[in-house]
Amino acid sequence: MNIIDIINKTKKSQELSEDEILWLVNGYTNGDIPDYQMSAWLMAVCLNGLTEAETFALTAAMRDSGDILKLNIPLTADKHSTGGVGDKTSLIVGPVVAACGVCVAKMSGRGLGHTGGTIDKLESIEGYRTDLSIPEFEKILSQTGFSIISQTGELCPADKKIYSLRNATGTVDSIPLICASIMSKKLAMNADILVLDVKYGSGAFMKNRKEAERLADLMEKIGAAAGKKCKAVVTDMNSPLGKNIGNALEVREAIELLQGKTKGKLYDICIELSAEMLRLAGKGSLQECIQLAKEAVSSGKALDVLRSTIRLHGGNERICDDTSILPQPQLKYEIRATKEMKILGFNCEELGMTSLLLGAGRLNKNDKLDMSAGIIMNCEIGDHLNADDIIMTLYSTVCSDFSDAAVRALNAVKFEITEKPSYT
Amino acid sequence: MNIIDIINKTKKSQELSEDEILWLVNGYTNGDIPDYQMSAWLMAVCLNGLTEAETFALTAAMRDSGDILKLNIPLTADKHSTGGVGDKTSLIVGPVVAACGVCVAKMSGRGLGHTGGTIDKLESIEGYRTDLSIPEFEKILSQTGFSIISQTGELCPADKKIYSLRNATGTVDSIPLICASIMSKKLAMNADILVLDVKYGSGAFMKNRKEAERLADLMEKIGAAAGKKCKAVVTDMNSPLGKNIGNALEVREAIELLQGKTKGKLYDICIELSAEMLRLAGKGSLQECIQLAKEAVSSGKALDVLRSTIRLHGGNERICDDTSILPQPQLKYEIRATKEMKILGFNCEELGMTSLLLGAGRLNKNDKLDMSAGIIMNCEIGDHLNADDIIMTLYSTVCSDFSDAAVRALNAVKFEITEKPSYT
Repeated sequence: MNIIDIINKTKKSQELSEDEILWLVNGYTNGDIPDYQMSAWLMAVCLNGLTEAETFALTAAMRDSGDILKLNIPLTADKHSTGGVGDKTSLIVGPVVAACGVCVAKMSGRGLGHTGGTIDKLESIEGYRTDLSIPEFEKILSQTGFSIISQTGELCPADKKIYSLRNATGTVDSIPLICASIMSKKLAMNADILVLDVKYGSGAFMKNRKEAERLADLMEKIGAAAGKKCKAVVTDMNSPLGKNIGNALEVREAIELLQGKTKGKLYDICIELSAEMLRLAGKGSLQECIQLAKEAVSSGKALDVLRSTIRLHGGNERICDDTSILPQPQLKYEIRATKEMKILGFNCEELGMTSLLLGAGRLNKNDKLDMSAGIIMNCEIGDHLNADDIIMTLYSTVCSDFSDAAVRALNAVKFEITEKPSYT
Repeated sequence: MNIIDIINKTKKSQELSEDEILWLVNGYTNGDIPDYQMSAWLMAVCLNGLTEAETFALTAAMRDSGDILKLNIPLTADKHSTGGVGDKTSLIVGPVVAACGVCVAKMSGRGLGHTGGTIDKLESIEGYRTDLSIPEFEKILSQTGFSIISQTGELCPADKKIYSLRNATGTVDSIPLICASIMSKKLAMNADILVLDVKYGSGAFMKNRKEAERLADLMEKIGAAAGKKCKAVVTDMNSPLGKNIGNALEVREAIELLQGKTKGKLYDICIELSAEMLRLAGKGSLQECIQLAKEAVSSGKALDVLRSTIRLHGGNERICDDTSILPQPQLKYEIRATKEMKILGFNCEELGMTSLLLGAGRLNKNDKLDMSAGIIMNCEIGDHLNADDIIMTLYSTVCSDFSDAAVRALNAVKFEITEKPSYT
């Protein structure tokens, strides 16, 4: 096989064989194929696409480039979100599904840029360890049915190398490449049941619903081709998910939801994702599973799961009953309406960047986090505010000057002034 | 400026500004932009194309990356061929045009792969020096009006670097990139008049006439935008140009033509190219210039120019009167028809590769040439041959085993058997 022939085939929209794709991925991973040839191929993929068969072959080759997790647990479920702002669904769906008798075993990452990471959120809990070994992970799973740890072993080295090249060559926004990147990692984590939350909108990588649907459809097909029970749900990320953005703030909101204190969009999405997972696990029809999930919240069983899991991870489980133990911000800054206005929308990516500026996120991999920092939203799209009403409150401990964050926060709100001009 | 933004613009078919293209070319040439980013951009160009304004900006930036030739001659003409098999037109057009009073100053290259190079052909003449300094070049031009030397100075380092990357990344076959590569070098050589011979067919880079016409049209526009008098002629390369392929064999055919001994397709193309050059130099209408060119051959004046030029280059000018002084092959092999047949066509690229196997060409840059080696064709498309008629004769001095070359030569001929089956 010959790299020039492979590049030319994709350039001419001719389908590559499974063997050719395997040869390409392995050759690039082991360094035989240089970056400049791989990036030419990646650009050809961005512009000409890949067939489903090619996408599956690419995903499988990337999955097989490293370790594949094999847990000593009969049936496990996993979820993946394509990344959003204020997305704490894993902290809710995991306990809910586990409370219904299906084991949720998840490896998560840290946040970078405008999106947060579940591992960071969990680490805002005093004492919580995310770097468990596989036997420790299995032990917690067998006891509570739910655990999230940080990625361990060498999963998908091919994806790591390809992703960093895509990032440097303008070849990120390709649906087959995004699909292969996500699915190769998920398939290496090797759960039996996979629920994918594909987000679209101003806070998501996919800016419109149609693109998100295409990605969701392709991911479901690739999951099925790999022998997984797989469902992809398309959800809106034009507003933050819930009211709170930032690590401890999001843990607090998740606990409040599991305490039965809040409903709304976040609750609805968590119930939907949980029900899909339960349905794939054979717990009944979607309607029946929605009922099961709601009862897991209302009965307090899901909160019990979270409490036990936090304790087994070495964390202070008392936060499940008293969220004021979580890291508290020392400073706050209220963004208020100057006139009567109607909220038309948000730029969620900008809200994520505001949260980052406050200390809740990372611009670079090694940046330190302020666990207490973030935003609490005080309005939703369509709300009418009076002059001086709070739009949102910014919180931080490390960031003493709120001016940059405040400017960014205001830019993230689209509104129209509804106050009538006075002629007096 | 930012390389990712530039890649993304071309990926989305958004036009780059002149400044962005200049920044890209300079950044790549000086090493600030790595290969893997440039190759992603090149692939985006292959698939999305460039506008005429972008192509001109790219050509100009590449031209300006190195030296620009400034000859102390009031008006010079140059020609370029996109490369063919048996193409000795420069050895004929140059003397013809010079004999009509227009100075032809040309820098040429060496052959690689199936196409030969004019410098190699000239070096088959005993004593002929191709590595002259610019003052020596100018002196010959002022005396005879015609000289061809090998490339000197550092012309278009950007093109050299980009071309080698294109070669390694499947990004060669893009009309704007081919145009910029050719035209940047031609514009750096800076002649006032430029005639471009754009070939299509089995021996050419462009396999069909339509593509060749697109390239020709674009090159003319770029030449005009750079202030040159420029004409691109599209010619057929489905048969070798003339009968002879190989260095000394081609010099011999060129001399025989200038001696008035041969007419045919090679003669017609040379008259056409010469007339276009003379027309651009203001020597009259195309018809008048065709007449001038024909007279330059029939009067022997063109051969006189060639003779003087060879002498001034240190070469043995007696070859102009006695071609048997040229390197003579020691071995020959005749390819004959086995049955009555009609010649349907040739694969010219295969004929070029046959000639290379015989010793006339290079597979790698540093391969040594057998100046005597090559092919003399004994038939044209449409000819009817009897059994045992010669199709072509292979010549060589270094290649003692003709078997590989013979197989390749036969594969290069498309024919149909016309002999009626005998029922006796």
